[in-house]
Amino acid sequence: MEDKIERLSILRLTEENVSEIDDTIVREFPLTIILNDQELVTMLCSPASQKELAVGFLYSEGLIETREEIKNVTLHEGTGVIRVETEGGDELDRETLFNRLITSGCGRGASFYSATDITGKKVESLLQVSVSEILALMRDFQHKSETFRATGGVHSAALCDTSKILVFNEDIGRHNALDKVFGECLLKGIPTDDCLVITSGRISSEILLKVARRNIPILISKSAPTNLGVKMANELGVTLVGFVRGKRANVYTNTWRITRDGK
Amino acid sequence: MEDKIERLSILRLTEENVSEIDDTIVREFPLTIILNDQELVTMLCSPASQKELAVGFLYSEGLIETREEIKNVTLHEGTGVIRVETEGGDELDRETLFNRLITSGCGRGASFYSATDITGKKVESLLQVSVSEILALMRDFQHKSETFRATGGVHSAALCDTSKILVFNEDIGRHNALDKVFGECLLKGIPTDDCLVITSGRISSEILLKVARRNIPILISKSAPTNLGVKMANELGVTLVGFVRGKRANVYTNTWRITRDGK
Repeated sequence: MEDKIERLSILRLTEENVSEIDDTIVREFPLTIILNDQELVTMLCSPASQKELAVGFLYSEGLIETREEIKNVTLHEGTGVIRVETEGGDELDRETLFNRLITSGCGRGASFYSATDITGKKVESLLQVSVSEILALMRDFQHKSETFRATGGVHSAALCDTSKILVFNEDIGRHNALDKVFGECLLKGIPTDDCLVITSGRISSEILLKVARRNIPILISKSAPTNLGVKMANELGVTLVGFVRGKRANVYTNTWRITRDGK
Repeated sequence: MEDKIERLSILRLTEENVSEIDDTIVREFPLTIILNDQELVTMLCSPASQKELAVGFLYSEGLIETREEIKNVTLHEGTGVIRVETEGGDELDRETLFNRLITSGCGRGASFYSATDITGKKVESLLQVSVSEILALMRDFQHKSETFRATGGVHSAALCDTSKILVFNEDIGRHNALDKVFGECLLKGIPTDDCLVITSGRISSEILLKVARRNIPILISKSAPTNLGVKMANELGVTLVGFVRGKRANVYTNTWRITRDGK
């Protein structure tokens, strides 16, 4: 965890006094992805699992589809540059890239649009999960994020089955945390069909789409969904569970996948 | 507030039972900005204060500098398109735009880099704020966000002086919320010098830079900063106050601007 945090001396204010204390903050690191000799994007991320992040990002953006396409991934430690070489790695058209990747703030406008244009494929899975399994998975998930407990500054994401967490990662960005999980799945050949995803972050349309594209039928979040997230979950056959906190949860869509305990 | 939220029927799960309840979720809306007849970006945002958002975004990205440059801002209700016309509105070079706007997830890589290249100007201000003023401002700020209290799904941002909130806005994205505040300042001619900014969101390098560019000396957040946010605050002369919760707060940089009460 040491690589993801930094210690420093700060002032702690209270109404009564001011004191100097030692504190821990999360690190932020610019990572530049070069795909087949073309500079693609500079992401601000947590400095760990960078190969997983780069591969997961390319996978989420539709720039790679299978593990076999990846010829080489080289991280140049220290410089913040990662090079990915793929099969058929022709120069990408700059205009296509622009339209594909341009975005704003926390919103990925273009990928959102192109996705609705091609109309996301509906998730097909008969997986079900019980209320107590959802609550237990979220408890495990919360315990796993050491960096969050140390700094309060990162998002987490995980791939699970109904009883346990299979792949876990974290990052200062909620998109990055999820891309790292999917990147690890792709690199290690871990299947995602009939799995669940848990995230600490809000469920916007983009997060929903990213999960639906991996054919994942159940998405669980500690936080709130947006109305577009709910609409897409409904249309794409994803069971969306939000606000999983303590002993309660909200189910927004495709409620047939939720079973009562003991049934 | 009605335009920013949507009501729907959901399943509420607890360990004991499952019930159907009415719930409120936050709306997410794609807004396309067209600058001088050129499509610039599609942002996912909360459907309110869209002129402020568009102008604030262009201002933050350095595509407009003054209010006088703006000839016209037209929102096409329903279609999600906003057109901004500026003085000297030549076609922007597509490559420049690409390099300027490309980003990933919650990270705006390119604007971050270009900013460090040109080396942000140091904030010059002798403004000071007391501990009790910081805590009181955060209390007011928290009370102001109706949508958050209804949905748990938005970020807020505000421009303040040491005693009160001057401009307040909210959005599903933390960058957007801040851009809306600065957009309103630009459109209404509200000066930002010697003001404070409050945000509900984390302080990454990008947020810090956006605030420093407006020559704002004090930035207050409910959440955590990253190490790059702290480094830039230090270098750019910004007093960074984080984790303002209840009766305590952390000061990370330029602590001379914090006064004890009664002094």
